[in-house]
Amino acid sequence: MNPIVQYHFDFGSPNCYIAHKLIPGIEERTGVTIDYLPVLLGGIFKLTNNQPPMIKFQDVKGKNAYMRREMARFLKTHGLDRFRMNSNFPINTVQVMRGAIVAAEEDFLMPYVDVISAAIWEQDLKMDDPDVIAAALKAGGLDADLILRRIQEDGIKKQLVHNTSRAVEMGTFGCPFFYVGDEPYFGKDILRDMEEEILRQKNQASA
Amino acid sequence: MNPIVQYHFDFGSPNCYIAHKLIPGIEERTGVTIDYLPVLLGGIFKLTNNQPPMIKFQDVKGKNAYMRREMARFLKTHGLDRFRMNSNFPINTVQVMRGAIVAAEEDFLMPYVDVISAAIWEQDLKMDDPDVIAAALKAGGLDADLILRRIQEDGIKKQLVHNTSRAVEMGTFGCPFFYVGDEPYFGKDILRDMEEEILRQKNQASA
Repeated sequence: MNPIVQYHFDFGSPNCYIAHKLIPGIEERTGVTIDYLPVLLGGIFKLTNNQPPMIKFQDVKGKNAYMRREMARFLKTHGLDRFRMNSNFPINTVQVMRGAIVAAEEDFLMPYVDVISAAIWEQDLKMDDPDVIAAALKAGGLDADLILRRIQEDGIKKQLVHNTSRAVEMGTFGCPFFYVGDEPYFGKDILRDMEEEILRQKNQASA
Repeated sequence: MNPIVQYHFDFGSPNCYIAHKLIPGIEERTGVTIDYLPVLLGGIFKLTNNQPPMIKFQDVKGKNAYMRREMARFLKTHGLDRFRMNSNFPINTVQVMRGAIVAAEEDFLMPYVDVISAAIWEQDLKMDDPDVIAAALKAGGLDADLILRRIQEDGIKKQLVHNTSRAVEMGTFGCPFFYVGDEPYFGKDILRDMEEEILRQKNQASA
């Protein structure tokens, strides 16, 4: 039996863009599917008293310069040459994250994540504007009317709140956050460790 | 020609214990020697307005619990089963870091780092107490009298201050911090990336 691997994500995190790009390779090499759980990073920060690293470390000399350089290097190493910082950062992602709940229910979460990730982190779009969201969804071949209508539903809003609270209960304090069984993995820098843990649990289960 | 790899370290960081344990493997696999530069982490924190992660994130729900768990997992993965948190943490390391300057001058830096690292992170000794330092050095076969006498010298004190300022000028804001040529690497989680960069620069130089 394969281990259950859960990925807590919010489009507002540039490292979630990176994680989403690296996940297909991890799934292919391990033969294990990673389940995406949409959460609201702003909600996680409030519930855990955390902040985005760029803000948390803004007064630390050298830290942000290092993070930018390390990010550029990481992108280059992994051939992610379409990434660029969004000029509207930080982004209010509540609408596009509610949209992810809709997309999961309607069974097109992966194409939806592809489209929204690219809109924010490749095309530099202002994805807290409903008109911009609608145009990006249509350009990506998705049902913009359905999504923008359904994100108004109470059930959809409540599901995102529920996912966010549940994530914090599990121990999530930021994104990207992964669980391999109950082993937590935070950030882009330990994706290789996570991949090895997936294989370890998989081999243990089949042993 | 091999790239120049510099390691900025302070015994007070548990992640520097880990780095020191993993460096021999990196050196063996790459054929490149890593140069140790003793710095004073407390000085770096003052100069950069940074703090130890445990303090920086102490009010963030879940973060410290995660860091402890991730650390235990990392130690286990790498077979570092002698590590234990020092009960005197955080430790004033100014004497043992001055000792590292002496040890470098006297050409026994590596045995010195072995002895002090083990005293703090395996034997749980209170290594800001001169009597405890002397006993640990003697037990490790090192010239305790020479070291404890020479750490009083102005030149030794100034060298540590100089190293620390120089590190901050280079961009260092914490430890373990590495430079492969001028490429910076911070923390224990990107040691594999660093190893790949050493090989890349080495291959590039010989191409």
